[in-house]
Amino acid sequence: MTIAEQFHASGTALLQRTPALDGQDPERKRAEIADYYAAVSDRYESLFQTLACDQAFYEKAIPLRHPLIFYYGHTATFFVNKLVLAKLLPERIDPRLESIFAVGVDEMSWDDLDETHYDWPSVAEVKAYRDKVRAAVLHLINTLPLQLPITWDSTWWPVIMGIEHELIHLETSTVLIRQHRLEYLRAHPDWRPSHEHAHAPVNELLPVPAGRVQLGKPRKASMYGWDNEFGLRETELEEFKASRYLVSNGEFLGFVKAGGYQNDAFWDEEGTQWLQFAQATHPTFWVPGAQWRLRLMTDEVEMRWDWPAEVNYHEAKAFCNWKAEQTGEPIRLPTEDEWYRLYDVAGVNEVPADATAAANLQLDHGASSCPVNRFAHGDFFDVVGNVWQWTETPMYPFDGFEVHPLYDDFTTPTFDNQHNLIKGGSWVSCGNETLRSARYAFRRHFFQHAGFRYVSSHAQAIEPNAYYESDRQMSEYAEFHYGETWFNVANFPAAVAQLCIEVMGDRPAHSALDLGCASGRATFELARHFDQVTGVDFSARFVSQGVEMAEQGVLRYTLTEEGDLVSYRTATLEQHGLADTVGKVAFFQGDACNLKPQLTGYDLIMAVNLIDRLYNPGQFLGQVHQRINLGGLLVVASPYTWLEEHTPKAQWIGGYKKDGESYTTLDGLRDILGSHFVQVGDPRKLEFVIRETQHKFQHSFSEVTVWERIR
Amino acid sequence: MTIAEQFHASGTALLQRTPALDGQDPERKRAEIADYYAAVSDRYESLFQTLACDQAFYEKAIPLRHPLIFYYGHTATFFVNKLVLAKLLPERIDPRLESIFAVGVDEMSWDDLDETHYDWPSVAEVKAYRDKVRAAVLHLINTLPLQLPITWDSTWWPVIMGIEHELIHLETSTVLIRQHRLEYLRAHPDWRPSHEHAHAPVNELLPVPAGRVQLGKPRKASMYGWDNEFGLRETELEEFKASRYLVSNGEFLGFVKAGGYQNDAFWDEEGTQWLQFAQATHPTFWVPGAQWRLRLMTDEVEMRWDWPAEVNYHEAKAFCNWKAEQTGEPIRLPTEDEWYRLYDVAGVNEVPADATAAANLQLDHGASSCPVNRFAHGDFFDVVGNVWQWTETPMYPFDGFEVHPLYDDFTTPTFDNQHNLIKGGSWVSCGNETLRSARYAFRRHFFQHAGFRYVSSHAQAIEPNAYYESDRQMSEYAEFHYGETWFNVANFPAAVAQLCIEVMGDRPAHSALDLGCASGRATFELARHFDQVTGVDFSARFVSQGVEMAEQGVLRYTLTEEGDLVSYRTATLEQHGLADTVGKVAFFQGDACNLKPQLTGYDLIMAVNLIDRLYNPGQFLGQVHQRINLGGLLVVASPYTWLEEHTPKAQWIGGYKKDGESYTTLDGLRDILGSHFVQVGDPRKLEFVIRETQHKFQHSFSEVTVWERIR
Repeated sequence: MTIAEQFHASGTALLQRTPALDGQDPERKRAEIADYYAAVSDRYESLFQTLACDQAFYEKAIPLRHPLIFYYGHTATFFVNKLVLAKLLPERIDPRLESIFAVGVDEMSWDDLDETHYDWPSVAEVKAYRDKVRAAVLHLINTLPLQLPITWDSTWWPVIMGIEHELIHLETSTVLIRQHRLEYLRAHPDWRPSHEHAHAPVNELLPVPAGRVQLGKPRKASMYGWDNEFGLRETELEEFKASRYLVSNGEFLGFVKAGGYQNDAFWDEEGTQWLQFAQATHPTFWVPGAQWRLRLMTDEVEMRWDWPAEVNYHEAKAFCNWKAEQTGEPIRLPTEDEWYRLYDVAGVNEVPADATAAANLQLDHGASSCPVNRFAHGDFFDVVGNVWQWTETPMYPFDGFEVHPLYDDFTTPTFDNQHNLIKGGSWVSCGNETLRSARYAFRRHFFQHAGFRYVSSHAQAIEPNAYYESDRQMSEYAEFHYGETWFNVANFPAAVAQLCIEVMGDRPAHSALDLGCASGRATFELARHFDQVTGVDFSARFVSQGVEMAEQGVLRYTLTEEGDLVSYRTATLEQHGLADTVGKVAFFQGDACNLKPQLTGYDLIMAVNLIDRLYNPGQFLGQVHQRINLGGLLVVASPYTWLEEHTPKAQWIGGYKKDGESYTTLDGLRDILGSHFVQVGDPRKLEFVIRETQHKFQHSFSEVTVWERIR
Repeated sequence: MTIAEQFHASGTALLQRTPALDGQDPERKRAEIADYYAAVSDRYESLFQTLACDQAFYEKAIPLRHPLIFYYGHTATFFVNKLVLAKLLPERIDPRLESIFAVGVDEMSWDDLDETHYDWPSVAEVKAYRDKVRAAVLHLINTLPLQLPITWDSTWWPVIMGIEHELIHLETSTVLIRQHRLEYLRAHPDWRPSHEHAHAPVNELLPVPAGRVQLGKPRKASMYGWDNEFGLRETELEEFKASRYLVSNGEFLGFVKAGGYQNDAFWDEEGTQWLQFAQATHPTFWVPGAQWRLRLMTDEVEMRWDWPAEVNYHEAKAFCNWKAEQTGEPIRLPTEDEWYRLYDVAGVNEVPADATAAANLQLDHGASSCPVNRFAHGDFFDVVGNVWQWTETPMYPFDGFEVHPLYDDFTTPTFDNQHNLIKGGSWVSCGNETLRSARYAFRRHFFQHAGFRYVSSHAQAIEPNAYYESDRQMSEYAEFHYGETWFNVANFPAAVAQLCIEVMGDRPAHSALDLGCASGRATFELARHFDQVTGVDFSARFVSQGVEMAEQGVLRYTLTEEGDLVSYRTATLEQHGLADTVGKVAFFQGDACNLKPQLTGYDLIMAVNLIDRLYNPGQFLGQVHQRINLGGLLVVASPYTWLEEHTPKAQWIGGYKKDGESYTTLDGLRDILGSHFVQVGDPRKLEFVIRETQHKFQHSFSEVTVWERIR
């Protein structure tokens, strides 16, 4: 009898933990993974046994999501999809069902109704399909060559991925079931709630000492992880205070009674919008009546005042604002960093492989929450487990983030500053979800088995940079400035900056202006040599890239591969050896044809790929000497791509017939700049390449001319 | 006393001929050129002495052109411009005047009014400027190192160019003076008309035997030539008949009296439009009255009935149509080729250097026409001289045509099928204009000292290809298919065709289809291997490029260098070793998504850079097997640049997420083509480069996949 069979037979055995991916005995690991898969799959089956009739599978629990029949089939299809993609399955098991069950409804907005119409298959048909998939997966597990450790790029990675994916849906399906009509549901021995409850304990704020936290999972970690967990973040935290307990229903009642749901002052803009849409007056699982009752998964029970309040981010945040007003303290939700500090200070450990969890996690303590004062962790309770805990931190990637090639959209769609991290796991969180390294995020209005702990801190909850630039032009330029090189053409902004530094020689190098700085690479490059460099661009969006790079040291963007398919890139100052330059640069929005007076006194002005994008290049060139010190340099680089959409033809400074003869832009530059500059050296042509898709590039030459101000 | 001084002093001496550019004695040649310049410049001065008052310089002779003051200054400014461009003059002589006198009004249309407003300088100021220029040019001629022969790329070429340019304006200014008000003019001893006249002779058609003519001037010719004269054309002509005389005013009177100007049947569409605009009822220099009189340069005299009728092309053509109707013979204007045949048959020679011309040319016989039966050339009269002769042939370039870098718009603006060649020269044609090789063209409605001879021939007057493609996309593709290579990337259509031929191996190679053939290069390339190749494109304009290449073996186009500046390119099948393939190719307009049924039974179908430009690529790919023989090949190449402007997103065959997973175009190709094809070999990526400007290129990869039809 395998471990899984033992577990299943007993009905009380612990649900198997996510396996370590290293070890000395591949065959033993193979068996462990087989057992893990079987256990998870069995438990998923048993969850759907709580549905009392076929109708329960087909009627939607909430209008925003597919009916449960979809989720019943989906985890099997996902497994097949990833194995086909990984070329571990030679062909699909049931193409029709696999098309139906492929894509869930990502609830991105509270009014994104699921209006897809499907001809759903019967429950029996899906069960048969699930069985077929299970057999195929088990066959694969039993036969696929296995080398330890299993790593990110191992053939076994998608196998673990498929199991962990089913565990995610195990949890989200319990939420949907909890939102389903009670008459569709029935009790099930695997899914019995806790009966423990009493009065709510009085909460209090306890100090958490200052200290350093380290987040992120190394690539060689011994447990499976999703893409967003890998990488590294280290940061110092000031002392703060945190509530001893999660906020209980009892504590939350104060907010409800105080009219918190009716007072816009406690809700931010997005929260107010949600409130207006949802018309909520209390937590979603509270059932109003003569006495408040509480909706559990398959039951409705009298209110558990000492269980955690389950709310969305907006409700949690509004509570904190109310609490801050009440107490005069800087009460707010914790950041992700603060949660980790609490975890470290409380001395929490991972769920043991072969003993009951010291927290309400992994279904070890039943299929519901339990009192907030049941599991102590140091001075605190429920640092992990019971319900997820909302944080102030939107999902963002750690340095070194990469998507997994077999699942490139697991996290990336949530790098939008609209998905906040939840930490700690709930009673139904299993496998990867229970780990310290786990990072899941949901839209802020979303309901999960999630509550919150509050903290008191004068430190601002800073939102890390999570934005992936996906505007085509912006991301092409991010790549142009900080990305790969193509056709052996050196990075262009760096090359021009280098050329500038070379021609500067021993001249004074106090300040430089990078006009038309775009994503700012040359601004940073010039700061290797100059004391102060200003980057100015007409486009505020470009300027924001420079600012982001300066403030965060990192820029994230998507690149078009083919059609709508994109890849995800991260560029850092560090990788280009530019981290030291941050203190010497500043970026501003500005118009080269109408610069602010204070932008003056430069030893160098660089105008790269600028003049043929100005509406009046002659005006700019005719006045630029006023901003350059005598003996200072002007460097102009341009492919001379004159286009009427940017520059009216009457304003072109060359590239036409003048008095019957060809008059080039270089002629124009010489005529305009001649009154205040002498040309230094000969024009040079520098190549540059801008990537548009994996197959398409702009490959151009920019003519570089150097001018010394002499009068 | 120099030759020029002798000439000027005598008042009867011959105007010096255009110098031979070779010789053994550079210093003698230097003196000859100095004399030639002085003589031409003097004669130009003397022409403007026919203007009786300053007002004559400033009032326009015709509303379409600048006043004569412009032409007085223009030839000097042109000389300076070319010498500055050639870096033979260190700086301008008078920038203000040189801006005013730079650009003439090209009378491109009969209603292009010259509405430029200038603050013209005084005549004395222009005279002083001309003197300064003359001194500078003579100084240059006296000091510039000279090696013989003077060739196209010699430093001396612009010197001769400047002199010959002044001779052109010497002639065109006589026309403007002839159109000026008589009270503004005065007689001048250098510009006395002929007084010889009598009754018009009766014209007759004489046979011209069949034979071969050779046109075009070799690069090593010993006389100066304009760009359009160089190159080579050889052709065989059938026998035809030509009128013994140019059409005299007397002969033309028949057409006028017959109501020729009132009968639309004799005028083609453009001619009818001109007639409606001009409201002409007789030749422009005829003065109506009790008796017809004739306007000469500075006089009006009684009608010279035996002098040549001076008309524009439309009037000459209408006369021929009338004459054809009268005689029942295929009367028309000669082609340029036919004029050369007549020249050769008549035994005409160039104007001798040191004797009077045997024709009314080079001002040797006064400043007007003379009787059409005055100068016999073999059996004919006035094969050269007296007045220019309109031909049916629009200006076109010979094989090997190149623009001169110092004057790139001498001829190219007239490659528009709207400028017809005039041949033979007039009484005032000097220098290059008198040579057999001379080729000048004017808009067909334009008046010059020009008349015509008619021919009778059943041969069609075929218009040679004179068109320079200047549409950006069309010319970029012409260059892409037939032009230079960039970044060491081999010619792409040729490389794909070569790849097709290689994978064909020993398979039957009767017929191939090049779908999306664009400018047709691959169609020709495939014909190296296949018996028959069809090129099909959705764009009729692209198809016309293939047709033109097949029919004429040559494609001409402009390429953008920078802004509006272009260069001129000529591509030939010959240069790519493809002249032999012409008989095996055919081009048609067609829609790949809706092909004509007869396009079937192919051993190869090539679809290069096509599928991502179709509105329904899936439909095309799903049906293409029907047109390929079993065992035949389909070759698809594409950069997969899906754009909604070409292909609605619903029709993309890949490049999106499908059932949650990345679905590439290659996946789509495999799924669609799988039912009828097997893939042969692995996909390959071929680079291609499309030039946009001298500094900007598209640099892309096209993925090539090969598919064998198996069912």
